[in-house]
Amino acid sequence: MSLTESLNTHRLALCQALDEEDGERLDALLPELRSADIAEILEAILEEEADPPRALALLGRLPLERRASVLGHLPGDAQLVLAEALSDERLLAILEEMGSDERADLFNLLDEDRRQRLLRRMARREREELKRLASYEEGTAGAIMTADYVAIPSGMTVSQAMMRVRQTAPDAETVYQLYIVDGRGRLAGTLSLRQLMVAPPGEPIDELMIRDVIHVPVDEAQEEVARIVARYDLLALPVVDADRRLVGIVTHDDAMDVVESEATEDIHKGMSIGALEDGVSRVPLWSLYRKRVIWLVLLVFANLFSGAGIAYFEETIAAQVALVFFLPLLIGSGGNAGAQAATLMVRGMATGDVGIKDWGKLLGRELLVAGSLGLTMALAVAPIGIMRGGEALALVVAMSMVTIVLFGSLLGMCLPFLLDRLGWDPATASAPLVTTLIDASGVLIYFGIATAVLTGT
Amino acid sequence: MSLTESLNTHRLALCQALDEEDGERLDALLPELRSADIAEILEAILEEEADPPRALALLGRLPLERRASVLGHLPGDAQLVLAEALSDERLLAILEEMGSDERADLFNLLDEDRRQRLLRRMARREREELKRLASYEEGTAGAIMTADYVAIPSGMTVSQAMMRVRQTAPDAETVYQLYIVDGRGRLAGTLSLRQLMVAPPGEPIDELMIRDVIHVPVDEAQEEVARIVARYDLLALPVVDADRRLVGIVTHDDAMDVVESEATEDIHKGMSIGALEDGVSRVPLWSLYRKRVIWLVLLVFANLFSGAGIAYFEETIAAQVALVFFLPLLIGSGGNAGAQAATLMVRGMATGDVGIKDWGKLLGRELLVAGSLGLTMALAVAPIGIMRGGEALALVVAMSMVTIVLFGSLLGMCLPFLLDRLGWDPATASAPLVTTLIDASGVLIYFGIATAVLTGT
Repeated sequence: MSLTESLNTHRLALCQALDEEDGERLDALLPELRSADIAEILEAILEEEADPPRALALLGRLPLERRASVLGHLPGDAQLVLAEALSDERLLAILEEMGSDERADLFNLLDEDRRQRLLRRMARREREELKRLASYEEGTAGAIMTADYVAIPSGMTVSQAMMRVRQTAPDAETVYQLYIVDGRGRLAGTLSLRQLMVAPPGEPIDELMIRDVIHVPVDEAQEEVARIVARYDLLALPVVDADRRLVGIVTHDDAMDVVESEATEDIHKGMSIGALEDGVSRVPLWSLYRKRVIWLVLLVFANLFSGAGIAYFEETIAAQVALVFFLPLLIGSGGNAGAQAATLMVRGMATGDVGIKDWGKLLGRELLVAGSLGLTMALAVAPIGIMRGGEALALVVAMSMVTIVLFGSLLGMCLPFLLDRLGWDPATASAPLVTTLIDASGVLIYFGIATAVLTGT
Repeated sequence: MSLTESLNTHRLALCQALDEEDGERLDALLPELRSADIAEILEAILEEEADPPRALALLGRLPLERRASVLGHLPGDAQLVLAEALSDERLLAILEEMGSDERADLFNLLDEDRRQRLLRRMARREREELKRLASYEEGTAGAIMTADYVAIPSGMTVSQAMMRVRQTAPDAETVYQLYIVDGRGRLAGTLSLRQLMVAPPGEPIDELMIRDVIHVPVDEAQEEVARIVARYDLLALPVVDADRRLVGIVTHDDAMDVVESEATEDIHKGMSIGALEDGVSRVPLWSLYRKRVIWLVLLVFANLFSGAGIAYFEETIAAQVALVFFLPLLIGSGGNAGAQAATLMVRGMATGDVGIKDWGKLLGRELLVAGSLGLTMALAVAPIGIMRGGEALALVVAMSMVTIVLFGSLLGMCLPFLLDRLGWDPATASAPLVTTLIDASGVLIYFGIATAVLTGT
C-alpha cells in the first residue's frame, strides 16, 4: 500500500468515526496518524462547516503535545478559527507546548485584546521571548527562526556538553547542531552532535568547535536564509542580533518551506500577480482582486501604444485589409518567444545561475537561439502568406516574423538585467509586461515592413 | 562583515594567489573556504579557460576528502571536464571518497569505456553498489538517494546500536536518523539518535523503534519524495525496493535541491519551455532551441484561428478601420487575465493547495474576481473609446472588455483542471497556450459585438 493510499484509508476511517461520534474508535485511530495528516483532515472539516465544534472535538481527543503539533501544521486562517473557539486557559496550554516560532506566528494572528490577556498569564521569561519573536518583521530570518536551540556555554568539556544536550533534548527543535556561546551570549562556535559523540569526554569544546560559523543577522531576507541553508547543506542556520548575540536558529524544514513559498511568489510575479498572503483557494477575494488588477490596468494603457501604431498605419491597412489576418499571429509569436527569454533570465537570476556579469555571453546565445526560432516560425507561416495574398505578402509576413521574434527575444532577455541595474526586482519583467511591450513594437515592425515592401511593389 | 562580503574577499585573495602561483598562500587560504565556495571559484575558472590545468592545480592542493566534496558541488559539465583530465587512478581515489549518490551521478557522466575501466579497478562490493545506484532512472527516488545510511540490525540493544552509530559515523550521510532492518534487509523500524541517546542502554531497540516508518519505493517520482520530506519535516526519507528491503535514503538537503529544480521546471513549463537538463547559461544551444521551438511553432498554427476570425469579419473592419485600434488591447488584456488565472491554478495544484474537488468553489471565486477585473478595465478603456470613435464605439469596447476578460479568466482557470482530468500535466496550460486561445476567442467576441452593435445603430 502506498503512502497516499494508506493515508486515504486512515482518513476515511477517521471521518466515519467522527460522524458516528465513536470515541473509542477515534482514540484507536488517532495515534496511527501523523500530525500533518490530522491537520489536513481538520482543515477539511473546518472548510465544510463554518462552526468549529467537530474540529474542536477531534482536537480535544489528542494529548496536549500533539494538539500543539497539529495546530502548528494548520494554515493561519484555520488556526485562528480554532484559537477563537478555545478558552484562554486551553489556548495557553497549547501555546506553551508549541515550538517558539509557531507560537509567535499564532500569537500574531490574535487580536490585541487577547494577546494582552494571554501575555499577562505567562511567566516573565516566556513572555519576553514570545514578545521578542513576535516582533520581527515578516519575511526576515527573525520571523522564521526558533528560539529552541541547544546553546552550550564556552568552556565546557565534551562530557558536560553531552549532559547539556540530554537535558535540552526534549524542548529543542534540533539537538544535532550545537552552538557555543561566550559569557555575553555571543556566537563563538558550532559543533555537530556527531563530532561531539566521537570526541574524548574530557576535551574542552572550545578546542573542538568550528569558529568560523555561517550565520545571518535577524533582519536577513528569508530567501537569502533559504539560499544559504541549501548552498551549504545545513541542518540549521544560526541567527544573531546586531551585537552578534545568538538569538535563534532557522531549521532545514523551515528553510524548505521558504524555498517553496518563494517559488510560488516568483511564479505569480511572472504573471504580474502580487504576493498573496495565503493559498489561492483561501486568500480573501478582495485581496486577490487587488493583487491582480494593478498591472492589468497599467497594461491596458501600455497597450494603447499598439493601438496608436495601428492608427498610424491605417492607410496601409485600409489598402490591404488581409494584413490584419496575420497581426495576432505575429505579435503573439513575438510575445511568446520574448516571454520565454525573460522567464529564463528571471529564474536564472533567482537561483543564482545567471549573474549580471553573464549578460554579454547570454546575449550572444539568445541572438543565435532566437534567430533560429524566428527562421523556423517564418518558414512555418510563409506558405500561409502565399495562400492568402501571394508572394509579396508571404515575404512581408516572413520578414516580420524573424524581426519580431528576434527583437522580442532580445527585449525579453535584456529587460530583467536592465531592471536589476536600475535597482528594481528583475521579476517585474513578467510575461504580461513583456508581451505588451512586444505587441506595440510588433505592430510597428509589421506594418512598417508591409508599407515599405507593398508600396514598393 | 556579511557572508557575501567575506566570501568575495576570500575569492579575490584566492584568485590572486592562483594567478601568482603562490602555493604557500593558497595552502593558507583554502582551509578557510567551504567546499561549495571553492566549487564556485573552480566553475568560474573553467568557464574562462577551456583547458582545465589551473582548475586542476587548485584541486590538487586540497586534501583528498575535500577534493571529493568540491567535485560533488560542481555542475555536471564542469565535473566531466575535470574527470576527463584526471588519470584513472586519481579519479578513482576521488570517487571512493565521494558520497554514494554523487559518485553514481559523476559515474553516469563518463563514457562507457572509462566506466568499464574504473569498475574493473574497484572492489566487488563497491562495484555492485555503484552499478546499482547508477542504474536508477533520473527523476526517481533511486537516482537521488544515498546508500550511506546507518542501518541497525533488529535485535540489538540501545548500547549496541550506539556503538554501531559511532562506527558508521565517518561514512554515513546522516547519523541522526537510524533505520532498523530485519534479517532479510527489510525496513522494520526507525529511531532518531535523540531517542536513542535518552533511552536506557540495555533496552532492545525493537521496543523503542517506530514501526510505521514513512518510506517510498525506489521508482517514486522525485517531486513526490520532496513533498513527503517537506510535509513531515523529515531529516531523511528511507527508500525500499519491491521486497521492502531498505536500499537507500534521501536526505533533507537533496530533497531541498529537488524542490528548487522542480520549481524551475514548473516556471519554464509555464512559458511552454521544456525541462532543461542544465542551467540556462550552460545548456547547449541546440537543446535550448528544441525546448523552446515546439510550442512556439504549434502556437503559430493555433494563432491562425485568430486570423481566420478576423478574415470572417473583414467587412466590419473595412467599414470601420478604427476598430483595429482596440484589437491588441482587448485580446492582450484577456490574455493577461487568463494567464494569471491559469498560473494560480497550476501552481496551486503543484503545491497541493488546490485539488480537483475545489473546482466548483474556485469557479465561483474566479467569476467574482474576473468580473470585477473586467469591469475595472472596461472603465479604464471606455473614455478612450469615446475619444476615438464616440459613444457607440466606447460601448462596444467596454462590453468586449468585460466579456473577454471574464471568458479568458474562466478558460484559464478551467483548462488546468480539464487537462488534469484527461491525464495530462496541468502545467501544459502555459501562459502562451492560454493567451493564444484567448486571442482567437477575443477576436470573435470583439468583432461579433461590434457587428451587432454598430450595424444596429
